[in-house]
Amino acid sequence: VDASDAEIRVCDGGVMRVACAQIENEVGDLAGNRERILDAMAWAEAQHADVLVLPELALTGYPLSDLALRDDFIDASLAELSRIAERSGSTTTVLSTIDRVPPRRGVDTKERSVSIGAALLCDGDVRGWYHKVLLPTYETFEEGRYFVPGERPGQTWRIGPVVAGVSICEDAWSDDGPPEDQAAAGARILLIPNASPFHRGKDRGRLDLMRRVARRNSVPVVYVNLVGGQEDLVFDGGSIIVGADGELLHRAPAFVPDRFVADVPLAPVRPVTGRPATVHTRVGDRPGPAAPPVVTQRMDLLDQVWSALVLGTRDFVRHAGFDGGVVALSGGVDSALTTALAVDALGPDRVLALTMPGRTTSDDETEAARAVAAALRVELRLVPVTGLAGGDLLASALPRPVARLTEDDLDSRARAAVLMAVADELGRLALATGNKTELSIGAGVLFGDMAGGFSPLRDCPKTLVYELARACGRHGPALPPGAVESPPTVLGRADRLPGYDVLDEIVERYVERGEGVDEICAAGFDPVDVRGVLQLIDDAEFKRRQIAPGVKITARAYANDRRMPIANRWRPFVGDEPDLASASGRGT
Amino acid sequence: VDASDAEIRVCDGGVMRVACAQIENEVGDLAGNRERILDAMAWAEAQHADVLVLPELALTGYPLSDLALRDDFIDASLAELSRIAERSGSTTTVLSTIDRVPPRRGVDTKERSVSIGAALLCDGDVRGWYHKVLLPTYETFEEGRYFVPGERPGQTWRIGPVVAGVSICEDAWSDDGPPEDQAAAGARILLIPNASPFHRGKDRGRLDLMRRVARRNSVPVVYVNLVGGQEDLVFDGGSIIVGADGELLHRAPAFVPDRFVADVPLAPVRPVTGRPATVHTRVGDRPGPAAPPVVTQRMDLLDQVWSALVLGTRDFVRHAGFDGGVVALSGGVDSALTTALAVDALGPDRVLALTMPGRTTSDDETEAARAVAAALRVELRLVPVTGLAGGDLLASALPRPVARLTEDDLDSRARAAVLMAVADELGRLALATGNKTELSIGAGVLFGDMAGGFSPLRDCPKTLVYELARACGRHGPALPPGAVESPPTVLGRADRLPGYDVLDEIVERYVERGEGVDEICAAGFDPVDVRGVLQLIDDAEFKRRQIAPGVKITARAYANDRRMPIANRWRPFVGDEPDLASASGRGT
Repeated sequence: VDASDAEIRVCDGGVMRVACAQIENEVGDLAGNRERILDAMAWAEAQHADVLVLPELALTGYPLSDLALRDDFIDASLAELSRIAERSGSTTTVLSTIDRVPPRRGVDTKERSVSIGAALLCDGDVRGWYHKVLLPTYETFEEGRYFVPGERPGQTWRIGPVVAGVSICEDAWSDDGPPEDQAAAGARILLIPNASPFHRGKDRGRLDLMRRVARRNSVPVVYVNLVGGQEDLVFDGGSIIVGADGELLHRAPAFVPDRFVADVPLAPVRPVTGRPATVHTRVGDRPGPAAPPVVTQRMDLLDQVWSALVLGTRDFVRHAGFDGGVVALSGGVDSALTTALAVDALGPDRVLALTMPGRTTSDDETEAARAVAAALRVELRLVPVTGLAGGDLLASALPRPVARLTEDDLDSRARAAVLMAVADELGRLALATGNKTELSIGAGVLFGDMAGGFSPLRDCPKTLVYELARACGRHGPALPPGAVESPPTVLGRADRLPGYDVLDEIVERYVERGEGVDEICAAGFDPVDVRGVLQLIDDAEFKRRQIAPGVKITARAYANDRRMPIANRWRPFVGDEPDLASASGRGT
Repeated sequence: VDASDAEIRVCDGGVMRVACAQIENEVGDLAGNRERILDAMAWAEAQHADVLVLPELALTGYPLSDLALRDDFIDASLAELSRIAERSGSTTTVLSTIDRVPPRRGVDTKERSVSIGAALLCDGDVRGWYHKVLLPTYETFEEGRYFVPGERPGQTWRIGPVVAGVSICEDAWSDDGPPEDQAAAGARILLIPNASPFHRGKDRGRLDLMRRVARRNSVPVVYVNLVGGQEDLVFDGGSIIVGADGELLHRAPAFVPDRFVADVPLAPVRPVTGRPATVHTRVGDRPGPAAPPVVTQRMDLLDQVWSALVLGTRDFVRHAGFDGGVVALSGGVDSALTTALAVDALGPDRVLALTMPGRTTSDDETEAARAVAAALRVELRLVPVTGLAGGDLLASALPRPVARLTEDDLDSRARAAVLMAVADELGRLALATGNKTELSIGAGVLFGDMAGGFSPLRDCPKTLVYELARACGRHGPALPPGAVESPPTVLGRADRLPGYDVLDEIVERYVERGEGVDEICAAGFDPVDVRGVLQLIDDAEFKRRQIAPGVKITARAYANDRRMPIANRWRPFVGDEPDLASASGRGT
């Protein structure tokens, strides 16, 4: 027990004034991130805050991927950190960034020498580091590939009269991690920078988790999350403060940058073990209490998904330096929704729609496309691709007649060629319109309708696409009924498939939850359906290897979250020999 | 010291008869792998071998990716293991496969319950398990994502009169790993199953490494490697036996399955510590010594690459169930070499070439394509794509005139549409023809000349492409001089680029060796060249996200080995604001 604790209890007023800045940092943008951080630091000082908490890897961006292996990048980030530290004042800034550490091996023979850290900045200096102990290496996360785990989970910090704990994201996701060690060592508040990517309903899980951390340790928790899109991932903000009894004290808005300050009631003074590092020894003197921040209501699930799709699309276009988007508008629900999202993300003037009738396109479809463009107030250009019709072009390539699908695919690829030509010419990004259901069963055409630089709906099951399309009017212009209720065409490719409601649930069970064929059948699905769908999903891995990036919105998206072999001979779903080329339903 | 060791020294004759089967296992092919394993076991028994050593994950295939997370797959693999164990006889089989273990966390909060193991099979039973301790989680490897590390690095095995050590691949790649522990615990021979993917010259590194392991521990090493292509990776076999003094006792051929048996001189009996597990207590009784196997000469580097490209292509086509390949033949060196490799991999009857002149194609180019097809004895079909010429199709899409590049790209994408139509119609795999240099600087056209299901030359720098093309005659028909010496066209896209020799070295330094701009300039390159090339490489990440799988042949291939963010704002190479869309030189 530290003798001085009893005496300082009278000085801290029982609260810590915590400023939180849920900022949009960007991967590799050291200068831009530095400015956002300095701006937040000046604001926090003006709020007389005891501490400022920023998201995980606020200075470098998250996730870094192999940028974390580049010595010159590490050097540059440490130089920026010094510059920022020089500007720190009386508010203690918890700034997460990478740190160089003595080389250490992981679970393999490779030495690593970088950690994810949180530097505590104060009075013009780096007062110390916490190094992240738990490094997620599953689903989309690859931190074990790069980083050395911290070895001092129980490290605490004396910030004026208060002993506080700092840990980072995954550190808080077990029931026996660094937060527990820190609370046991005397921390009266836990400060946690995060870079937690969105999926539908994950905010609920985070809140429940932080409540458990708080209650288990009888200590308040400050959870600050990143905002912004980074390739497939969207970080949704929604930072929270939870009291020692698990009560939600504050929730910041989701999907937008935000700042808030709160006087957080501290846990009672407790015995201090270990050796807290001293950040400073001042006792705060401030002009009265902070006004309690306004708690944001939780967003409904459909709006969460909409916001994630918009933010992810906007940031991809912005980061990659494109001037807007181009969409191939068929009149169907997928392309109509993609256009609506692009309009919300980029504005109608920065979205161009092309409708490209082929040999089998009806006038109704073209009219439906016109109606969508009119409703969304985007420019539409009509580009017939009938001139490409299989016949002429393929005459010297293949004996006649070619399969109907081959001709359809040729039209699809002609559309892709035009879409890309227009995108390239205008410096805009081509947006693909495929959804998760289609991607699951391999119904898309590689280099045809799958072509694009970004694929916003890639992780949205078809049933969700319909829901989102019907809800468009909540976020901007409504889609015309014809587009929202357009009949599905995808399923026509497969001989026999269940309806979308059944299909999407089988996909969810197999892909997101990892259930096996027996479990899915036991849930009441027709075994023939189940085996057929699972076979299609496995076969389509071949096509999925070349998909454009897109926004993760489910617990398990394709590509990074779920890494399956293309050529996988394990086919428990059928009796006979697999034949990927024919089973994947053409259009490869 | 174990008292019985002195007495059994007289019985073992100072050698262990080791049978090695460098087999082609396939990911997920439990039934096929089981048959290959049983076949090797029967052969080893017939050889009166003391032990049979197979490659890493011989039963399940390697790498498993997320298949390792599927409970039903793990169950099925363990059931197959039991079936195989029942058939085991007096030869001890060291069979590597996955094992279910008590759940344990890795460096994160996720519990894992599978290990990479080696089961020791004998007398109809699994006599015990070794679990791999070091789990590579860098470059292409992701084992930390899936597996629980073994906790008994020093485990040894009593196989009749001999104490032996078993460890797996990465375990042997440090100087203080399981082999050291096992030798210190009394092992007189080290048996090491491996799945070590090929890159140019890696065989030399492996031999040096095994020599060091042997010398350091004064113990012989038996190193058995896998053979075959698995998506981007080729496993090249080339298993080796190294004596206790580091002498190479045997080298198996590379890139083909092989079996060999050798009487390996054991290290002298040494004190036994720990507790060796007993596999059996018989002392071998065999009809005289084995004939020493014939040592294979090391393959030269260019032949290694050729063999890897052929094996990788052959196995991708085979695993994915295609009936052959289709290549777009331009008359240039890349497509000529791709066709030659496809012919070596699949046979001339299973390769179809298309030459597709566009608006800017000269008759000479078409003639060159004809000459290549004739030399390689493959069928060539002439498919003019001039009908697509930008004009008509783009008239309603874009105001005139469009950029020359936009029209060229349209031709390129029309060729892709035809290539894919032909491939789909014939059930064949479309082979893309791009090389690593082109991929580095973003010179390819997405969904155009980059389109295909597999891209054999994806990791071959252009200078190597020329070398391989000139050496074609060593492996089959030579390419016509026109194709081999065809002038490069790619560089025309960029304003100013150094020649291929300089370009390829800059790429190698930056991508393979991870050097920074200062290091590369210090090696004597023009700083303007260096900065320009590095900027192009970073910008082209956008296109590389959608490349087809292809054969890894360098130390660091794109995609799995090197995972860079697409939208990375860290641009130390230029002073001004990055603009990916324009900098990447169109053709996105």
